[in-house]
Amino acid sequence: MELLVVKDRRMDYDGSAIRSHWAYRNFGILGNSLVVFRGRCDVKVGEMIDIEDLRASKEIRSDNMVHYIVEVFDLVNTLFASTLQKLFIAKLCEVLGDYGVKTTRKGDDIYVNGRKLSISIATVSPVSVKVHIGINVEAKGIPEGVDAVGLRELGITDVEDFMERTGRTLVEEFEKVKKDSLKVRWAQ
Amino acid sequence: MELLVVKDRRMDYDGSAIRSHWAYRNFGILGNSLVVFRGRCDVKVGEMIDIEDLRASKEIRSDNMVHYIVEVFDLVNTLFASTLQKLFIAKLCEVLGDYGVKTTRKGDDIYVNGRKLSISIATVSPVSVKVHIGINVEAKGIPEGVDAVGLRELGITDVEDFMERTGRTLVEEFEKVKKDSLKVRWAQ
Amino acid sequence: MELLVVKDRRMDYDGSAIRSHWAYRNFGILGNSLVVFRGRCDVKVGEMIDIEDLRASKEIRSDNMVHYIVEVFDLVNTLFASTLQKLFIAKLCEVLGDYGVKTTRKGDDIYVNGRKLSISIATVSPVSVKVHIGINVEAKGIPEGVDAVGLRELGITDVEDFMERTGRTLVEEFEKVKKDSLKVRWAQ
Amino acid sequence: MELLVVKDRRMDYDGSAIRSHWAYRNFGILGNSLVVFRGRCDVKVGEMIDIEDLRASKEIRSDNMVHYIVEVFDLVNTLFASTLQKLFIAKLCEVLGDYGVKTTRKGDDIYVNGRKLSISIATVSPVSVKVHIGINVEAKGIPEGVDAVGLRELGITDVEDFMERTGRTLVEEFEKVKKDSLKVRWAQ
Amino acid sequence: MELLVVKDRRMDYDGSAIRSHWAYRNFGILGNSLVVFRGRCDVKVGEMIDIEDLRASKEIRSDNMVHYIVEVFDLVNTLFASTLQKLFIAKLCEVLGDYGVKTTRKGDDIYVNGRKLSISIATVSPVSVKVHIGINVEAKGIPEGVDAVGLRELGITDVEDFMERTGRTLVEEFEKVKKDSLKVRWAQ
Amino acid sequence: MELLVVKDRRMDYDGSAIRSHWAYRNFGILGNSLVVFRGRCDVKVGEMIDIEDLRASKEIRSDNMVHYIVEVFDLVNTLFASTLQKLFIAKLCEVLGDYGVKTTRKGDDIYVNGRKLSISIATVSPVSVKVHIGINVEAKGIPEGVDAVGLRELGITDVEDFMERTGRTLVEEFEKVKKDSLKVRWAQ
Repeated sequence: MELLVVKDRRMDYDGSAIRSHWAYRNFGILGNSLVVFRGRCDVKVGEMIDIEDLRASKEIRSDNMVHYIVEVFDLVNTLFASTLQKLFIAKLCEVLGDYGVKTTRKGDDIYVNGRKLSISIATVSPVSVKVHIGINVEAKGIPEGVDAVGLRELGITDVEDFMERTGRTLVEEFEKVKKDSLKVRWAQ
Repeated sequence: MELLVVKDRRMDYDGSAIRSHWAYRNFGILGNSLVVFRGRCDVKVGEMIDIEDLRASKEIRSDNMVHYIVEVFDLVNTLFASTLQKLFIAKLCEVLGDYGVKTTRKGDDIYVNGRKLSISIATVSPVSVKVHIGINVEAKGIPEGVDAVGLRELGITDVEDFMERTGRTLVEEFEKVKKDSLKVRWAQ
Repeated sequence: MELLVVKDRRMDYDGSAIRSHWAYRNFGILGNSLVVFRGRCDVKVGEMIDIEDLRASKEIRSDNMVHYIVEVFDLVNTLFASTLQKLFIAKLCEVLGDYGVKTTRKGDDIYVNGRKLSISIATVSPVSVKVHIGINVEAKGIPEGVDAVGLRELGITDVEDFMERTGRTLVEEFEKVKKDSLKVRWAQ
Repeated sequence: MELLVVKDRRMDYDGSAIRSHWAYRNFGILGNSLVVFRGRCDVKVGEMIDIEDLRASKEIRSDNMVHYIVEVFDLVNTLFASTLQKLFIAKLCEVLGDYGVKTTRKGDDIYVNGRKLSISIATVSPVSVKVHIGINVEAKGIPEGVDAVGLRELGITDVEDFMERTGRTLVEEFEKVKKDSLKVRWAQ
Repeated sequence: MELLVVKDRRMDYDGSAIRSHWAYRNFGILGNSLVVFRGRCDVKVGEMIDIEDLRASKEIRSDNMVHYIVEVFDLVNTLFASTLQKLFIAKLCEVLGDYGVKTTRKGDDIYVNGRKLSISIATVSPVSVKVHIGINVEAKGIPEGVDAVGLRELGITDVEDFMERTGRTLVEEFEKVKKDSLKVRWAQ
Repeated sequence: MELLVVKDRRMDYDGSAIRSHWAYRNFGILGNSLVVFRGRCDVKVGEMIDIEDLRASKEIRSDNMVHYIVEVFDLVNTLFASTLQKLFIAKLCEVLGDYGVKTTRKGDDIYVNGRKLSISIATVSPVSVKVHIGINVEAKGIPEGVDAVGLRELGITDVEDFMERTGRTLVEEFEKVKKDSLKVRWAQ
């Protein structure tokens, strides 16, 4: 899994990055990839993946987020997509723990003292598994009724360092998962 | 995923429970299952799944462990097996955190202050994904050279309650993963 | 497989219900589902799935039909879709036999005394298997040249009861198929 | 799907024909196949596929049966195996109907007036789907407690003709299923 | 794999033939197919499959080509698509060798004395594997900067015979591949 | 795909290297691999994979061969296995062409002037695709009735160089196949 942390500019997330080969089309990264970038989040209805949100007419917005776009080509399956997503969220919570931030994970949501830090979705394209994770840098521009929190409030102010560190950690987690999948014999 | 917590007796783990349909053959549990039980661990060489361990002639032993045997029939794939295993280990760490125990997860290993609390393996049979996780109740009967720790040393003395609580939590985690996999539309 | 029999209103079938997650989007039913409803049938060319029909410029129309929309997420494969479709058609014939109606099944078509009672299609979306079955309540609004028959002519006048009974029977058939798939060991 | 009806000799079924490539090893039939033969049935415990039967210590025996061994290489999946099995059983019931025999199908079991006519199992090998169906010619040598019936009692005395006719019909059914799976476009 | 060599007319390739069921929609060929035809090549940007080409804003053009459109429904996977494509290209090189033309194959490109003879792409639809191969009849209308060569320059002037011969050879190659896949037992 | 060319010793091939994880068990090579070695060939009946050979009671023997053992974990499917095998054989023929040796490939067999140079088999384990290719160094110890030829007779006397060169070329071919599979968008 190749890592790209985009630091030289802001990029907004409108949902279209969930499409297949987004990392290859935009950055020339072939194969499994994790792209970390920073920018606004405002998912257009036509790009929304979570039908539960669509049914509830939820808005998915935040003014300032760190975004993670994962693409894995090994296996095209929504159950695997959902499992990998939860593992990556759990890993992010472990890293936040290293920062001294105590989190609660509920599936693919991260909470700090009952306030929502993140959004996430996992699905498949016809050729890959895709995951988006967004972590608030600041709790601004959030849909009404959502009690949100951002990294800055939690004392994590060097956002670029956070992007770099979490990016590397998630890639290492995936490589460990992959390696372990290759070293076991099958069972009867 | 059906949960069975075996409380009325001790059962030893010799590695054969990693075979397909073990839960159905022994307990009549059809389909996805998690069986939690307690007993010794002494994996016979013929049942060892981790070829890395086989190559290193490692022993896998402990006198007193809580065992988790997971079987999932939805998808037969070692990368999925390895991902699900790591997620379950991460979840166990989160539960240990609720007990006040600070853990470090390295892939599928749980450490407390540098001491090893657990063993685990994940693989496939021709019809299912299988995961075994073992958590030391006491650090006894461990292979030489392994600096181990057990639940009791960590202050978790009501082992049956721990088995029940972790069992329920892992099943809930899986059900959430499964539910989320069904509510997302595919991406282009 | 969750069953929904829509009795409180008529719903027309224009072919768009064959898309993935139709039951979840419209009724909030997550996972495998069977939705039974009643209404006109007029499949738009852009929604036609059967390329043989498209090539022959066939029309797919009927003024009054019982419709079954099946979605299964376990396995995405057209051969499985086609097999499940034929099994469900065979089951419907068995139920019609219980009503005293003698049918002839030709693949996915049901005939009574040489007259066509039903239409059906089975395919895949990128995340699921989808099947549509339509059974004429009356042989009205049928494309010219098709010698059709409807349930009323066959003496089945309590259409709601028929919808309920067939819906339950098809779900039971699927659950039996699923259960049996889990209780067998693999063969060498 | 190639059909072989073995008429020149009796062959007993001990369960080993459920293994992969049995038709190729024994008759040189490459690819999808249906082999129909006649003989005793006495499944050895080591060859039993149905774990439910194993758990109940059931015997699977009959002195005189028509046997069908199906192998399909297109798709290796137990849910597909179980679906195809039920469709084939339903088709056999339809043919029995043409003989004037009124049957009741319960999943993969055929009953005539509450008496059991058949046995069946469906599973996977690592490379194929395998189905066995056995139909009693006479209700002899049946395990105690099973109220069985045979073809002869039902007035079907030309067993070779029955083997030929059902064999051809099942192959036609499969070819129709396969053809239909290829003529449909995918749905969104 | 059914073969169709279109000789009675010219057909241009604009990229849309890469879509699923193109052979069935246009020629009524059900299942695996190879269609060989002759005509211009001018792939519209909206139909381009190779994202590397898209990123480089490459043009894919030639005034006079023999085209091969392959569709295989057995297995939907891009690694398989890419492997089959290379094998077919290698086979075409072998046939060219029989014509006395010495070629160099680089992946899916055929060169003669450093000049490019062919273009090719392989991908999946949601239901099939699709491959396009184009071989220049004349090196005319080729994008600037590409040093191309055509069959005529190589002394192959009976293009219809070449289409027929290569078509038959590729289908035989596939049938051999398929047959061999069915005659091997699985390994432990 | 990792390459290992074993030069420091002879190793015989008895067929057991076709089993899954052979390269990892014996050389610690994790994941996709190609191991090239030299030694006798004498496949035990219990290890024979080709059922056609088993049915014909063929012997598979040669006193001096270069062996290639391929394992690919990306996709478990016999059609893919058979396709990859043919591509690798075609590539070996291309390399032999570079040596000035004119070959004829028939599926997975290499002939030089009608004499057999090679043997090969491709199959799956439950977790991988496996291919064995053997090329005679000398035509000694070959089963009676087979008109064989070896590399030495063809003027290729630096066998270690041949092993190194073909090994590298096959790995490059696979990497190209893999890369191309990742750079294409899916087709409708």
